[in-house]
Amino acid sequence: MTTATALAQTKPPAKAGDAAMQDIPRLAPNAEQFTLDNGLEVIVITDRRAPVATHMLWYRVGSADETGGQSGIAHFFEHLMFKGTKDHPNGEFSSIVSSIGGEENAFTTPDYTGYFQRVAKENLGQMMDLEADRMTNLVLTDDVVAPERDVVLEERRSRIENNPGALLGEALSASLYRNHPYGRPVIGWEHEIKALNRKTALDFYKRYYTPNNAVLVVAGDVSVDEVRKLAEETYGAIPARPEAVRAPRPAEPPSVGPRTVTVRDEKVREPSLQRAYLVPSAATGEPGEADALDVLSDILGGGATSRFYDKLVRGGDVATQAGAYYQSRGIDDTRFVIYGVPKPGKSLRDLEAEMEAVIADIRENGVSEEELNRAKQSVVAQAIYSQDSQQAMARIVGSALMTGRTLEDVQTWPERIQSVTLEAVQEAAKKYLDVDRSVTGYLELKTDPANKEGKS
Amino acid sequence: MTTATALAQTKPPAKAGDAAMQDIPRLAPNAEQFTLDNGLEVIVITDRRAPVATHMLWYRVGSADETGGQSGIAHFFEHLMFKGTKDHPNGEFSSIVSSIGGEENAFTTPDYTGYFQRVAKENLGQMMDLEADRMTNLVLTDDVVAPERDVVLEERRSRIENNPGALLGEALSASLYRNHPYGRPVIGWEHEIKALNRKTALDFYKRYYTPNNAVLVVAGDVSVDEVRKLAEETYGAIPARPEAVRAPRPAEPPSVGPRTVTVRDEKVREPSLQRAYLVPSAATGEPGEADALDVLSDILGGGATSRFYDKLVRGGDVATQAGAYYQSRGIDDTRFVIYGVPKPGKSLRDLEAEMEAVIADIRENGVSEEELNRAKQSVVAQAIYSQDSQQAMARIVGSALMTGRTLEDVQTWPERIQSVTLEAVQEAAKKYLDVDRSVTGYLELKTDPANKEGKS
Repeated sequence: MTTATALAQTKPPAKAGDAAMQDIPRLAPNAEQFTLDNGLEVIVITDRRAPVATHMLWYRVGSADETGGQSGIAHFFEHLMFKGTKDHPNGEFSSIVSSIGGEENAFTTPDYTGYFQRVAKENLGQMMDLEADRMTNLVLTDDVVAPERDVVLEERRSRIENNPGALLGEALSASLYRNHPYGRPVIGWEHEIKALNRKTALDFYKRYYTPNNAVLVVAGDVSVDEVRKLAEETYGAIPARPEAVRAPRPAEPPSVGPRTVTVRDEKVREPSLQRAYLVPSAATGEPGEADALDVLSDILGGGATSRFYDKLVRGGDVATQAGAYYQSRGIDDTRFVIYGVPKPGKSLRDLEAEMEAVIADIRENGVSEEELNRAKQSVVAQAIYSQDSQQAMARIVGSALMTGRTLEDVQTWPERIQSVTLEAVQEAAKKYLDVDRSVTGYLELKTDPANKEGKS
Repeated sequence: MTTATALAQTKPPAKAGDAAMQDIPRLAPNAEQFTLDNGLEVIVITDRRAPVATHMLWYRVGSADETGGQSGIAHFFEHLMFKGTKDHPNGEFSSIVSSIGGEENAFTTPDYTGYFQRVAKENLGQMMDLEADRMTNLVLTDDVVAPERDVVLEERRSRIENNPGALLGEALSASLYRNHPYGRPVIGWEHEIKALNRKTALDFYKRYYTPNNAVLVVAGDVSVDEVRKLAEETYGAIPARPEAVRAPRPAEPPSVGPRTVTVRDEKVREPSLQRAYLVPSAATGEPGEADALDVLSDILGGGATSRFYDKLVRGGDVATQAGAYYQSRGIDDTRFVIYGVPKPGKSLRDLEAEMEAVIADIRENGVSEEELNRAKQSVVAQAIYSQDSQQAMARIVGSALMTGRTLEDVQTWPERIQSVTLEAVQEAAKKYLDVDRSVTGYLELKTDPANKEGKS
């Protein structure tokens, strides 16, 4: 029941290595895909290491699909999905999962909403039965809706309102997206959460929660045939609803110049900055652009061998932290983020100028062959290693299908990364790490009342 | 066919004067109001100075009422209203107005759309007949819709895309309004204008262009009874449509800190800055707040006797221009704007710091009795003088009715201004001229490529 947005990735340090991998691995190489008659897409990733199964149901709806003025409904609805059906009243789903030693959770993002459980393989059918039941039989009464809304409001208060960094993040997104709904928070604006009610929730449920708007991902000690049979017996009984296709979102106009947002607060322990550039996602970019941005983010700020770390933290005496990441997943244009924390005695502007100099150097002179190869190995290795987690692999595949990509796109991603050229990396930096496309956010200590025009 | 948004007001210099006006004048004192059976509201302002009449029809719909992704439809539709009906084909309305020596125009704002003609009094009935005809009988074919869309796109190109100041204004609005549709341009985003079509236009027409969503304002050499008779014969024949009420717009979340937007362009002749504070409108403020903001804007930056002029232009050697205005009209929260142009050799940051110091002084120490009285006289005198123009008076009344105020509110406004206290002015400055509520826009010369991270 978390809201996931852009999260900084911590990447394992990579070793410099040989440019040409002899055998480029595929991600999820044995994943198979089929579709039920009612439109439910199914992905099966057989993984025989242990007698467990991960069951994930993904809906093609997220906060960016919300009607204006109803921000937060996608996430609030995720909470309401736990409120029970006629056959399985409020709380029963979770207590069953718990009683069989399973794990469960759910998540809402701008582009999708997902529910998952990890259970012993013999309980997979039961999970599918329960998940299919709440896809169509959810019972919502004012008795459960109103208290759960209070839970979400409290979640917002504790995670956002009392957290200057989170408030800055909201302000930064709102400034980066002038027209597109990625500009609003997944959890919703407080005043709009307060106005959500049973009717809003039911309208949302009826529109989006239907098999032809969902993808089932099962990873674990199961065969494709077993999953197909169980899926047909459970989800297969639910009729499709043809109107369940989400609408295209309002698109961004061209950026016309740099923007800044500043939050000053007593609760800030150390100043920091982050800058987000509006860039294409893997779904919206020209072929190869997202892959070049993946590699660029690793070279620029992916770990202890990155330019930022080398020039600003280890070498430059200006930062205690500095990094970069690229949010490749997104139905629409997404963001490339740089961030840093200045050393004591250095200002955010000092740090910003140094970061800009590092970027300017890459824009002008490109990167080295060695950096390129190291970054390719690093980003691919990270993804390959992540397959060690059944859940992580199911998430990579599911989130790709939710954001305009195919299983094939996921599987061949390591090959595409390997084909990224020096020119493509420099071109991506030149085209997209342009301050005119960016918003810089400053998180500052509240110490100088003169900055506040005499505000006490 | 203009798009009016926030425009700087040039105010006549006021004389310092006596605090208590003996007889506080009313605005539009002889205006009368009635409503037709179909819901059309009518205001008549008799003005016998010349045998002319101003006929204005106002619709309660503007760009802030547009569906997300369809920005520009309100303004585009204003253009389409000139495309003719069965009885009066494309161009006939305007050629009739021209042939009888009349004037006409139309305007779209975030909150309303208006059409007006000024004609000899004997032609008033004909104007009402023509305007009523196109309220309900407009004929739109693809033949007229597509070319007119090109006209609007060209209007956007010439007025916005080629004008760095206009682009900055758009960026500033988008940053000031993080959730509310006042953040999008009245003319629309270019990519969304391109997608507007006949169906979008007809849906918009059917929803909003109906007598119960309109206000007729007639000013001129006519009696209330004459106008009532003509209105019943023309508009009175059109049935009401009960669904024509516009929806509340998404509201703004609280501001969390200062924001900036910067546009650098070769076309910029001189740098300038403007800062917009999010403030209540006359419709959303507590009683007296908008009046205090009216007075405050005059004291701070209303002309040659203002603080800004005195301290920054005449006295301070930092600015060649500096002013302030308050956008009191708005269904929802609106803006208080300060702006300035630095003297050669002074930077925008120098100017900004000086402006902040002037504001800090008012926040801390308030204003003087003399300033208060001079400002009251100035703002009231300006409104009273404007009644010399039949059109201006009709506009003041019409726009008030479009933005949540009443005829009585307009008439008694001078009395409310007279009752503004020193405390109210200081309180308004303290509460609303808070940099955390603001976005500052910088229009800069494009001279220093280093600022662009190496961008050539």
